[in-house]
Amino acid sequence: MAIALVLEKARELSLREIDLGQRMGPDDVRIRMDVVGICGSDVHYYRHGRIGPFIVKDPMVLGHEGAGTIVECGANVRDLKVGDRVCVEPGIPDFASRASRIGLYNLDGSLTFWATPPDHGCLTPEVVHPARLCYRLPDNVSQAEGAMVEPLAVGLQAVMKTPVKAGDVALVLGAGPIGILVALSALAAGCARVLIHDPAEAKLRIAAQYDGIEPVAAGGRALLDAVLAETGGWGVDLVYECSGAGAAFRDIGDCIRPGGTLACIGMPVEPVPIDIVGLQVREVTMVTIFRYANVFDRAVTLLARGRIDVKPLISATYPFAEAIAAFERADAARPDDVKIQIALH
Amino acid sequence: MAIALVLEKARELSLREIDLGQRMGPDDVRIRMDVVGICGSDVHYYRHGRIGPFIVKDPMVLGHEGAGTIVECGANVRDLKVGDRVCVEPGIPDFASRASRIGLYNLDGSLTFWATPPDHGCLTPEVVHPARLCYRLPDNVSQAEGAMVEPLAVGLQAVMKTPVKAGDVALVLGAGPIGILVALSALAAGCARVLIHDPAEAKLRIAAQYDGIEPVAAGGRALLDAVLAETGGWGVDLVYECSGAGAAFRDIGDCIRPGGTLACIGMPVEPVPIDIVGLQVREVTMVTIFRYANVFDRAVTLLARGRIDVKPLISATYPFAEAIAAFERADAARPDDVKIQIALH
Amino acid sequence: MAIALVLEKARELSLREIDLGQRMGPDDVRIRMDVVGICGSDVHYYRHGRIGPFIVKDPMVLGHEGAGTIVECGANVRDLKVGDRVCVEPGIPDFASRASRIGLYNLDGSLTFWATPPDHGCLTPEVVHPARLCYRLPDNVSQAEGAMVEPLAVGLQAVMKTPVKAGDVALVLGAGPIGILVALSALAAGCARVLIHDPAEAKLRIAAQYDGIEPVAAGGRALLDAVLAETGGWGVDLVYECSGAGAAFRDIGDCIRPGGTLACIGMPVEPVPIDIVGLQVREVTMVTIFRYANVFDRAVTLLARGRIDVKPLISATYPFAEAIAAFERADAARPDDVKIQIALH
Amino acid sequence: MAIALVLEKARELSLREIDLGQRMGPDDVRIRMDVVGICGSDVHYYRHGRIGPFIVKDPMVLGHEGAGTIVECGANVRDLKVGDRVCVEPGIPDFASRASRIGLYNLDGSLTFWATPPDHGCLTPEVVHPARLCYRLPDNVSQAEGAMVEPLAVGLQAVMKTPVKAGDVALVLGAGPIGILVALSALAAGCARVLIHDPAEAKLRIAAQYDGIEPVAAGGRALLDAVLAETGGWGVDLVYECSGAGAAFRDIGDCIRPGGTLACIGMPVEPVPIDIVGLQVREVTMVTIFRYANVFDRAVTLLARGRIDVKPLISATYPFAEAIAAFERADAARPDDVKIQIALH
Repeated sequence: MAIALVLEKARELSLREIDLGQRMGPDDVRIRMDVVGICGSDVHYYRHGRIGPFIVKDPMVLGHEGAGTIVECGANVRDLKVGDRVCVEPGIPDFASRASRIGLYNLDGSLTFWATPPDHGCLTPEVVHPARLCYRLPDNVSQAEGAMVEPLAVGLQAVMKTPVKAGDVALVLGAGPIGILVALSALAAGCARVLIHDPAEAKLRIAAQYDGIEPVAAGGRALLDAVLAETGGWGVDLVYECSGAGAAFRDIGDCIRPGGTLACIGMPVEPVPIDIVGLQVREVTMVTIFRYANVFDRAVTLLARGRIDVKPLISATYPFAEAIAAFERADAARPDDVKIQIALH
Repeated sequence: MAIALVLEKARELSLREIDLGQRMGPDDVRIRMDVVGICGSDVHYYRHGRIGPFIVKDPMVLGHEGAGTIVECGANVRDLKVGDRVCVEPGIPDFASRASRIGLYNLDGSLTFWATPPDHGCLTPEVVHPARLCYRLPDNVSQAEGAMVEPLAVGLQAVMKTPVKAGDVALVLGAGPIGILVALSALAAGCARVLIHDPAEAKLRIAAQYDGIEPVAAGGRALLDAVLAETGGWGVDLVYECSGAGAAFRDIGDCIRPGGTLACIGMPVEPVPIDIVGLQVREVTMVTIFRYANVFDRAVTLLARGRIDVKPLISATYPFAEAIAAFERADAARPDDVKIQIALH
Repeated sequence: MAIALVLEKARELSLREIDLGQRMGPDDVRIRMDVVGICGSDVHYYRHGRIGPFIVKDPMVLGHEGAGTIVECGANVRDLKVGDRVCVEPGIPDFASRASRIGLYNLDGSLTFWATPPDHGCLTPEVVHPARLCYRLPDNVSQAEGAMVEPLAVGLQAVMKTPVKAGDVALVLGAGPIGILVALSALAAGCARVLIHDPAEAKLRIAAQYDGIEPVAAGGRALLDAVLAETGGWGVDLVYECSGAGAAFRDIGDCIRPGGTLACIGMPVEPVPIDIVGLQVREVTMVTIFRYANVFDRAVTLLARGRIDVKPLISATYPFAEAIAAFERADAARPDDVKIQIALH
Repeated sequence: MAIALVLEKARELSLREIDLGQRMGPDDVRIRMDVVGICGSDVHYYRHGRIGPFIVKDPMVLGHEGAGTIVECGANVRDLKVGDRVCVEPGIPDFASRASRIGLYNLDGSLTFWATPPDHGCLTPEVVHPARLCYRLPDNVSQAEGAMVEPLAVGLQAVMKTPVKAGDVALVLGAGPIGILVALSALAAGCARVLIHDPAEAKLRIAAQYDGIEPVAAGGRALLDAVLAETGGWGVDLVYECSGAGAAFRDIGDCIRPGGTLACIGMPVEPVPIDIVGLQVREVTMVTIFRYANVFDRAVTLLARGRIDVKPLISATYPFAEAIAAFERADAARPDDVKIQIALH
């Protein structure tokens, strides 16, 4: 039995004892969780008790953006030792599956994932996890930054899967946490400029803190015209759609250069009408992104080397005892909040 | 003045004299047109007088699938000589444009194209064209086959732009001329199997003549289930959408393997509802195709080496004097017709 | 204890009892080996007792090109059952290693491989192996063909790692078993033509049986001139170096087209002088190949669908009791021998 | 007749009148040259009167790294106007050639190039050049920086042709002007760290000014060990060979990660012994680089947006009247000199 932040059902959270049934295997480590961030999906489960086909039927511990400290190592573990600070990749695939073997372990059908029903998350003082999904943090990366690696990994996956080249110009649609982390990833991957759009001015102001990110307030057709004006009529090399709003796709081909790329990171609830011919006349390629694979180590390196700075995105930190208040703050969705974190120790 | 098959306006064709205003430049050749195939777009102009924003305002000569014989060479022409038999690439780009310079001359905004208003096509005894867009036919490739190179080029563009690998399994949606040529291109590009679907059984029977092409009659959800059954639940590596029917996109992600590709060759008239999340969970990449670039020489090589056989697809050949009858036949859209050609000499 | 073909030391083979120390785990199968091919590396160990740093210090069972029948399944095995005929991938990686996770499990440093010291091979009536490295053979693929999948996999790896496109022209250097299997893979992957060169005319005659493979007898500078003549001065799209002879690299850039590819499959014993500038002026990319990953399933599909036919390459089959004679035949290296196999049952 | 810096023959320079035979065509501009940098190849022609097969038989104007101001526009020129400041791409290809059409205009066999015999360079007050090879400089990019675009383009070509990903670690061999510009390009393209090696400590000190570039002084086997130590034994993702020294290739595969890339930018005079097997065991891909295509616009954007700063690399600027002294300085090859420029106005 361990204390944990438990989602009993939609709109009902408890900080209470629960049996997590964790058992150490020889390839596992036991991690003292230090900092856990609240993700939009955590909030979604809190609000609705489900995300699409994933339904919270039994009480479930929330949290999947975690950093901690190793307190015990299984017999086979070689690359980590007690006391190492780590960030943790929350999806556990079968590495020998057909998808994993071609490098796409994020698409393995048997993958389990923290805080995705029926699997518990990491908002609890200690968790057991495969050592190979834990990544050591160097001295100059804090636990708070370490807990940002998971959402940053989504941004890095987006740039790993798109043909970014040095000097490219990108457009990011949506300036929530993922939109900003995608924008930072696009800059880190070589973009010379990242235009970003969001209807909420407060979000654009936060994004605008970063050198190289240029907010564009105008929406719809005016946005496309602004993008064309910024690129001399040629269009951007890449669009990263992070809003999940169907309307973002309308006429989107018009602002992409010949041979450019549209990446879908946001997850629209309903099918989205797409003008195929509008993409064809520029032979736009549409790439779709699902979580991440093989990027946690890159994320840590980029943070450690100062190529990406996530500290300005941590809006508030709550002690574990106030975890429910932290969720209420996240649920309030204040436009000037980016990431709310919970410090467990 | 020259005789030509002229589309006066929707539903009105004449075989009459017209001033084509052709002038030889030093990089041009004059070509005696021998065989011209009728394309679906020719028929579309005949029926509707327009394709989307391209409107036939003045009488226009039809035809853009042509093979002929060189009868005159400009002063700078080195690689061709009088008497050479050639197939002709009908789009004339500015090769120094920004799109052309990155290898995408098909996407050059200043490109002109035979039988696309306001430019005339090639259903006339002689045309003038840049020598560099004419490709010599070897002895074992006939003029009739040469006139099939243009539609075959669409199929080859589809496989050039998609990551086909030896042993892949593909699904082609739509078994019209383009669907079948895409299927043949997919086989030539390394697919071990090409499943093909069309609601018209007659079209499937034609496709089934080819070793390696496997018709699937079931549509909708049953099609997807059949595809999954054929691939042991893994899904196909590639889907080539050639029907242009919006319904083809419904649930399409469900039958594509993790990391697979959806290529859009058909051009749906209206925006198509697409389940983005259905693509994301497999990280499907959607590639869009527009005409072709740098594939005519490949098409000729593949025909000459017997890797692709287009002869079974030539359903009927009309003399130039009966060109209007040829269009009426094409307009009738008999399910067992694939390609109708016109022999000018 | 089991009977096996044991390499005691260089030039000394025994067919004798040996303790293989095999133990079934829950993810393993026990396979009755039916047919095993003799690879050049088996012969090399027989002749020299070593390959580079891999030294036969203790008696070692030879053989790694095997097909067999499942006789027992571990508790976790789902995709295979007793009686299934399979071909077997002989390298066992750690699928969770850093190299494996990016899709390169063939490059995992902890990989063990049949008949590579200190690991035993499969020339013994029964072996235990991970089920996930066994691939079911369909009814129309024989055990003898199944035992060809391993060397064919090298050819497929070569085409998986090179950007072959439909209609390409390739040049293969070396017409031994691997050279011919690379040539067949290049055709299966979309090449319209494969030129092949070998100093031994007998080998070229075997290669020439296949439609699409064109022998070129001339060597050295004359070879390059012949290749340029065949390609109108443009050069081939791809060169596959399978001879392992350093001389093959001399001036090789001269016959590759701008932007073309040179793939190194042969393994030269000594460093090879390469004219870097000769590659640079065409921006040739040199790809290097090591064994294979993720291609056994493709190989089986291509055999089953008749896209590749390996039957003409099986030169002789010996019963297990004559396994030593089989090795002597392979050691004799008759120019008209391609593959010698041993039938164990 | 115009004054120009003329290489009469090896070791003999004149600043004298010469007939350049320039003629404006409708697609050309006349450019007042403002700043021209001295390239290693200019110095090589000065020293030896030749570079490989390119022999200075007649007096030739030197210089190909130029920035200037438009003083006259041909009738067809639309995108530039008198007074625009520009940097100039010195190679003039046939954009309709076979190589150009696939995006590789740098590999077009008919390309002419400034200061490559028999073509004159730009060390003269005015030159005529195709408008489409001139790139406007924004207000915040000086003419001196503009004249750095040509060598920077080599660095950008290297990163365009290699699969750099955000967070990669690269090793650059050689810290001359090209080595440093490649290192800056690698950082701009997403590398988190760039290790750089050169035997000359003075060069490493210059490179070390840049955040993200880490000098490694040790050479030979010690260099490889240092690189492995820096990467936890995994190896670097990319090696950029810029020294042109054959010894740099020895054992180079040992410090590259599985699936990594070796890019050859330096041009070794003699064939270089390469350990093919050492590359194969990691499936290293060797990419070769020749000049550049489609990167001048990217270079200007990266300078304008502050993603790359070339100003610390301009070691000295001489007036045109002292152009010969400038060459003598460049010929002296002081280890703390990076780029010597000549200001013409």
